[in-house]
Amino acid sequence: MSKRPLIVIGGSSERSQETMGAFQEFPQVEACRLYSKFSARPSSIETIPSIIEKAVRSSIYGRPGACYVDIPADFVNLQVNVNSVRYTECCMPPPVSMAETSAICMAATVIRNAKKPLLIIGKGAAYAHAEEGIRKLVERCKLPFLPTPMGKGVIPDNHPNCVAAARSRALQFADVIVLFGARLNWILHFGLPPRYQPDVKFIQVDICAEELGNNVKPAVTLLGDINAVTKQLLEQFDKTPWQYPPESSWWKTLREKMKSNEATSKELASQKSLPMNYYTVFYHVQEQLPRDCFVVSEGANTMDIGRTVLQNYLPRHRLDAGTFGTMGVGLGFAIAAATLAKARNTGQRVICVEGDSAFGFSGMEVETICRYNLPIILLVVNNNGIYQGFDVDSWKEMLKFGDATAVAPPVCLLPNSHYEQVMTAFGGKGYFVQTPEELQKSLRESLADTTAPSLINIMIEPQATRKAQDFHWLTRSKI
Amino acid sequence: MSKRPLIVIGGSSERSQETMGAFQEFPQVEACRLYSKFSARPSSIETIPSIIEKAVRSSIYGRPGACYVDIPADFVNLQVNVNSVRYTECCMPPPVSMAETSAICMAATVIRNAKKPLLIIGKGAAYAHAEEGIRKLVERCKLPFLPTPMGKGVIPDNHPNCVAAARSRALQFADVIVLFGARLNWILHFGLPPRYQPDVKFIQVDICAEELGNNVKPAVTLLGDINAVTKQLLEQFDKTPWQYPPESSWWKTLREKMKSNEATSKELASQKSLPMNYYTVFYHVQEQLPRDCFVVSEGANTMDIGRTVLQNYLPRHRLDAGTFGTMGVGLGFAIAAATLAKARNTGQRVICVEGDSAFGFSGMEVETICRYNLPIILLVVNNNGIYQGFDVDSWKEMLKFGDATAVAPPVCLLPNSHYEQVMTAFGGKGYFVQTPEELQKSLRESLADTTAPSLINIMIEPQATRKAQDFHWLTRSKI
Amino acid sequence: MSKRPLIVIGGSSERSQETMGAFQEFPQVEACRLYSKFSARPSSIETIPSIIEKAVRSSIYGRPGACYVDIPADFVNLQVNVNSVRYTECCMPPPVSMAETSAICMAATVIRNAKKPLLIIGKGAAYAHAEEGIRKLVERCKLPFLPTPMGKGVIPDNHPNCVAAARSRALQFADVIVLFGARLNWILHFGLPPRYQPDVKFIQVDICAEELGNNVKPAVTLLGDINAVTKQLLEQFDKTPWQYPPESSWWKTLREKMKSNEATSKELASQKSLPMNYYTVFYHVQEQLPRDCFVVSEGANTMDIGRTVLQNYLPRHRLDAGTFGTMGVGLGFAIAAATLAKARNTGQRVICVEGDSAFGFSGMEVETICRYNLPIILLVVNNNGIYQGFDVDSWKEMLKFGDATAVAPPVCLLPNSHYEQVMTAFGGKGYFVQTPEELQKSLRESLADTTAPSLINIMIEPQATRKAQDFHWLTRSKI
Amino acid sequence: MSKRPLIVIGGSSERSQETMGAFQEFPQVEACRLYSKFSARPSSIETIPSIIEKAVRSSIYGRPGACYVDIPADFVNLQVNVNSVRYTECCMPPPVSMAETSAICMAATVIRNAKKPLLIIGKGAAYAHAEEGIRKLVERCKLPFLPTPMGKGVIPDNHPNCVAAARSRALQFADVIVLFGARLNWILHFGLPPRYQPDVKFIQVDICAEELGNNVKPAVTLLGDINAVTKQLLEQFDKTPWQYPPESSWWKTLREKMKSNEATSKELASQKSLPMNYYTVFYHVQEQLPRDCFVVSEGANTMDIGRTVLQNYLPRHRLDAGTFGTMGVGLGFAIAAATLAKARNTGQRVICVEGDSAFGFSGMEVETICRYNLPIILLVVNNNGIYQGFDVDSWKEMLKFGDATAVAPPVCLLPNSHYEQVMTAFGGKGYFVQTPEELQKSLRESLADTTAPSLINIMIEPQATRKAQDFHWLTRSKI
Repeated sequence: MSKRPLIVIGGSSERSQETMGAFQEFPQVEACRLYSKFSARPSSIETIPSIIEKAVRSSIYGRPGACYVDIPADFVNLQVNVNSVRYTECCMPPPVSMAETSAICMAATVIRNAKKPLLIIGKGAAYAHAEEGIRKLVERCKLPFLPTPMGKGVIPDNHPNCVAAARSRALQFADVIVLFGARLNWILHFGLPPRYQPDVKFIQVDICAEELGNNVKPAVTLLGDINAVTKQLLEQFDKTPWQYPPESSWWKTLREKMKSNEATSKELASQKSLPMNYYTVFYHVQEQLPRDCFVVSEGANTMDIGRTVLQNYLPRHRLDAGTFGTMGVGLGFAIAAATLAKARNTGQRVICVEGDSAFGFSGMEVETICRYNLPIILLVVNNNGIYQGFDVDSWKEMLKFGDATAVAPPVCLLPNSHYEQVMTAFGGKGYFVQTPEELQKSLRESLADTTAPSLINIMIEPQATRKAQDFHWLTRSKI
Repeated sequence: MSKRPLIVIGGSSERSQETMGAFQEFPQVEACRLYSKFSARPSSIETIPSIIEKAVRSSIYGRPGACYVDIPADFVNLQVNVNSVRYTECCMPPPVSMAETSAICMAATVIRNAKKPLLIIGKGAAYAHAEEGIRKLVERCKLPFLPTPMGKGVIPDNHPNCVAAARSRALQFADVIVLFGARLNWILHFGLPPRYQPDVKFIQVDICAEELGNNVKPAVTLLGDINAVTKQLLEQFDKTPWQYPPESSWWKTLREKMKSNEATSKELASQKSLPMNYYTVFYHVQEQLPRDCFVVSEGANTMDIGRTVLQNYLPRHRLDAGTFGTMGVGLGFAIAAATLAKARNTGQRVICVEGDSAFGFSGMEVETICRYNLPIILLVVNNNGIYQGFDVDSWKEMLKFGDATAVAPPVCLLPNSHYEQVMTAFGGKGYFVQTPEELQKSLRESLADTTAPSLINIMIEPQATRKAQDFHWLTRSKI
Repeated sequence: MSKRPLIVIGGSSERSQETMGAFQEFPQVEACRLYSKFSARPSSIETIPSIIEKAVRSSIYGRPGACYVDIPADFVNLQVNVNSVRYTECCMPPPVSMAETSAICMAATVIRNAKKPLLIIGKGAAYAHAEEGIRKLVERCKLPFLPTPMGKGVIPDNHPNCVAAARSRALQFADVIVLFGARLNWILHFGLPPRYQPDVKFIQVDICAEELGNNVKPAVTLLGDINAVTKQLLEQFDKTPWQYPPESSWWKTLREKMKSNEATSKELASQKSLPMNYYTVFYHVQEQLPRDCFVVSEGANTMDIGRTVLQNYLPRHRLDAGTFGTMGVGLGFAIAAATLAKARNTGQRVICVEGDSAFGFSGMEVETICRYNLPIILLVVNNNGIYQGFDVDSWKEMLKFGDATAVAPPVCLLPNSHYEQVMTAFGGKGYFVQTPEELQKSLRESLADTTAPSLINIMIEPQATRKAQDFHWLTRSKI
Repeated sequence: MSKRPLIVIGGSSERSQETMGAFQEFPQVEACRLYSKFSARPSSIETIPSIIEKAVRSSIYGRPGACYVDIPADFVNLQVNVNSVRYTECCMPPPVSMAETSAICMAATVIRNAKKPLLIIGKGAAYAHAEEGIRKLVERCKLPFLPTPMGKGVIPDNHPNCVAAARSRALQFADVIVLFGARLNWILHFGLPPRYQPDVKFIQVDICAEELGNNVKPAVTLLGDINAVTKQLLEQFDKTPWQYPPESSWWKTLREKMKSNEATSKELASQKSLPMNYYTVFYHVQEQLPRDCFVVSEGANTMDIGRTVLQNYLPRHRLDAGTFGTMGVGLGFAIAAATLAKARNTGQRVICVEGDSAFGFSGMEVETICRYNLPIILLVVNNNGIYQGFDVDSWKEMLKFGDATAVAPPVCLLPNSHYEQVMTAFGGKGYFVQTPEELQKSLRESLADTTAPSLINIMIEPQATRKAQDFHWLTRSKI
């Protein structure tokens, strides 16, 4: 769903015991079909190299995705004559394609004629390493841009042309939108009214032909590698330079909306009441966030609000629940990012921002984090529940009148859970914080300490929620 | 795989957004097909009752299993005219069938002529509530019996006719084996040599026709409800009473083997060296195990050795990883059993015996356990790894020479993990025990305290393993 | 769908070429999953015997069904050490189970108390060889019965208790219905009003537990082998004899309805106008139909009307499109039945009654019929279309005004097609008949000639249809 | 498998009857998953337009393929408010992408340095309408080329640079091979020795990234629309003209081999013995084949040998069993092509060359051909069997000694089958030909008669086979 390249290698039961009720016998290749681009079992040891080559190649060629390779238990001890194995070299880097020249011209014309243009930068742009080209395009043409969750950092979030703080407004009134590797799915409200103008012109830049035209009829489609296509567009604007007037009423509208949104956020962030709210927490986290860190995040409000406050400065340094929105991926992502940072010896830290419910899906992975002493700082933004929780006093009150089983709403989690102790249980550092000062201090210490992972359990107001939104979640056209 | 009745109800994305890239859009009904007896989405709100009825019925009629019902998000707020809904009553209890009379006679004759008879009691017998009949059969005919992992407790493990302590011997030399709801899969070594005599006569009693004849050609097949068929067999032995001679050489062989195996176990259990070994741990647990408790277990050696030492006295009171052998099920099973006990107000405790690796799969469920204050005692038998782990000193030594990442064998877990703190983090009781005395004391306290769940983290020798086995795991015939 | 036992063995591409784009490479085992009880590829030549044994056993044990076995091309020439193959004997006949005694008593009581009883005899009864028992039950208790399409012949259609000629009436007003191996699916209108009384009591006799309770809540369920259960019921009525009063108003109602329906059919059959109608055709066919022949049939009106006129006297001697209603199966069924008759040397003929559209699906199989000189008489009941066709004059008229492509309704077939020449092309006998006399003569000749197969192409009125029905096809409850 | 765009719309059972045993109830969307790029059921009538748009778009964007749309029976009579339907325009033509410029340069260099170059023109080139570009490339650079079965006609088969008559030789010794939309699957022997040089350099031009690198590691990959990429290559050779020396030893080798192969074919074609052989038949057919006709073909030897003799002069005018090699597709293809020709009023004829076994799969479609009076000439090349058949005399001899059933080899069909009568049965013209003269005459008459379809049943030597091949069918590398 999130179209990331991934190779999954699974062990399976001994072939000679198939259909007999073998240990964990299951048609795994078949079961993985729906989830993968390629799912296969080598028919013999001799074919393992070519199957692995094909799995790797399939996962990175074209639109990337997951591939599954099944290795039966009996392969582990089988022997093979080395000469009967066809050695298979690793595949070349993915082939690069470009858009048709005429389509590029048409796209440039549409952009030049836009009254309210907008670029949307998706994870496809990040995956294609298109950051340099897209940045040049934004800056030369002076265009406003919005990143998608996983597109954050392709251009730094603090770039003056980033209009993320006026996201709904930008989407709703743009007349021309260029999508760089971003799909018009639920995250972008399907590209339909009321979230968009009915006659907005989409220019879709994508590596996947079948993605073009989904949900809307685009004005121009640019099929190809996003980096290559971006360069083609740049060439057009090099030949005939053009820039969108920075004093246009569109820019003015966007800037005003951003200012007012930022003011609201700032006001929320500066509230002194305790427990803290989301904005206060993220404000303080952002203050200390290292520029080069990886940000991993999952949760409901935690992920959504955190995304608007925590800034990314580098491409491919944010990992969140992504297109499918599945919880439980956070610690795995953090471990992967940290392992990479450690292997590359970059000294980078991984900041993993978890809702308390999200943390519950895979919290035991702190053992892995501690075992390999990975440079991860876990923040659990703890509201005792999913969307909303109970506070300790309500809980105690409830318990007085009888059985918690009977009455605890299913979306509530146990108040005052000491998630930080799940970390200290394995030798990492743990912090239980209730005030901005404690948060600042614990973050400072965690960032300073490079010898051990840490977990900061941040208590927030159980009823805390996000600021009012213009549209309901998952809004779409009536029609 | 474990053929337990289960209804899974899943939410799915809004129907009108299908194929558009909806939130968590996926063909879930299709994806569940391979795993379930029945997988469907009601085509409208009006059909929900009949779909649910069919799912419930399918899950308990015939051989039980899992059923999946998919409820699209838009159903939640849709309205329906109550008159357009066809009210569907819950189905009747599962229909009961019996074996053919002639097959019953034949089975009785084969049993009467057996020189080395053996009964195997599987989870099908437990599911069919056949305990009374099977116990009578065992006692009237004086037959030796073996339970499968999930068949334990149908007759109490301490019954004098239970030959579990001579399991391999009993399987290997029996000439007639009656299977009560037990499959000849990997757990029973497929019913094939060298684990069995080549000419052993199997009498299969099963509710599922397609199960009969798997891997072996049985001497007699008794298709029907296991309880009903057992009663049919009892009638035969009522009409013409018969009992297997208690002084036969077969009984002698089995008793001797049991005695020698029990002596070995006892010897291991009484070793005084520290850290403890598995047998010492289970010996002390068994000493205090309440007769009426539920025993839940998962792990590798922990589950396998624990099963041989921890006794069940009641049917359907043991839940372990079962036929498929999947890790991560333990805490869910424990929560289910405890919720049942709590709802029925029986005062029963749930003893959940986890390997440290197994606990890592779903350890965060202690939050649920604490939230609902469930009567669960978790035992983590901690050897710092899977099958085998590292001790603290080796680990420190290894760390001295560089990076743990590089050298920690993948089956090792972090030494000295304080799993008990995962429990105390949520308000339960936690114990870190290293000696038999500490173990005894912590168990005593946990059992005495009915106000809170507890977790006992039991450190054992990282290299501890089980006693020598006659056969390799998953042994099967060469042919 | 039709739950007939079937083994399909398919060749597949060479294993070493899998994933390379081999000749006809496809995941066939996976593709057959939805259609079969068991779908597998042997993992080696050594395991072929046990896979075949399991496929055969799965196809006949429990409710029968289709099984698929996949044989890769490279198996054909591989060699194997004979000692490494585990020889697997063929499985025993399917195990037989019986209903619980208490359920049998309850069923007998419900039948005894019925005011308007009805037995429905399905293909499950035929498959179980329950004909003797069911006939005794019908005759001893003097009960009216109805066969389903594939249940025809379990008791001869001309049995005085057969109320097929009053089918709708019998279903609609019965207060107790005993189903012998008949499912309450679309063929039996789901067992729901308006086709049934809302409070009709169903007694379901079935081999498949999961079938019990589908669409209705039965009064009694009798799970077991249908032959065995029928005998159990007979024993009840032996112990305490009972018979339904032959002069009851229910019998009177049914007999009157049958008489009036038969009069209508007779009237239609005796119409002298040409082209003939369905009833005239089938009347003459029935006149000459050998008692012991196999009747195969497919089509729309042809199959439906034919079924009401053409009588079966022997069980398992009718094969029609069955539960799934798929066209194209007729000639294959006829070939299978004829091959059986020829192999057994019974001298039996196969009468295959095809609609012209149905014949078009597999008409080329006449080559096979002629190649093996099989004792088959094909009747093509030819109305130039599906449901309704065009006559030659209308067609010519239409052609005059232009292009047939543009105007021929899609359900029309070419008028005056000489299907009999498809038979003579391969050396069989062909007849083109337009009158009752020609039909009689050609049938007489075909039956007399045992040296060659024949095809009688019977021209009927293109607009001919069936007599008015009380209910629309596929009627079901509003609710 | 053949990657042709196709929309399949299937009716399905009424939604409210799902899970009840509805008429032809089946999970069709799920069953079509493995076979299609997109398989879906609209969730309501309102969503039909967008589902159809997506199906059409998916079938033609990217690599083309089949899509399935499921329409439940109850949709047919449901009503909908026209305003609640979101009107969806048809998608734009497929987006076009080009290869990276640097890859184009590299490809040109590799071609220029080739000692033994070869172009292979696949059906992807035909589908992309790349004929003009590829022809220019061949002629400017004077390169030898080979078409794949479905690539025939992109450049006329009689082009002087076509080396189809030396196919095996060309593949085996080429040092650089450019693939235009041709896959290295079984048809091209996977691109591996012994059919190719171990170090042959492949340049793959393909629209599908995942196809690149299958089975071999290509020297250069050119990802993009084949027409666009061909033009990019042409530009390279325009900038720096180059041509492959027409007097090179490679051209000499190829020309000699072609000459000798053609001589062998000619010799076979001119054999006077009767029955005729394949070459004689195809020689005479080729003589009269209209330049602009569609050639459809299926069979074993018939298709394989016919392909080498029957020439295509226009792109996209040959339809054969294609990549998957499935029999039974011929008459459907012929009807589709003829309907197109008729609709376009081009006067083109469709010549459908069928093996007798292949014709047996769908021969009844002659009814459709006659009903719509389509301009199709069917040739049945009749050897009484599959690969090889029996002659009439052997057959009669066999019959003398008993039952044909027992002894007729399964690959034999009935000798002297008069397939032409299957055509005359429906009013078309039929010819039974045994000599070259009869074949010439019947072809002449068929081509002259534009008022009716015809079928020429051409009797050939039952043991006739193709000339000796250098390699076994489906040869591949030992490794």
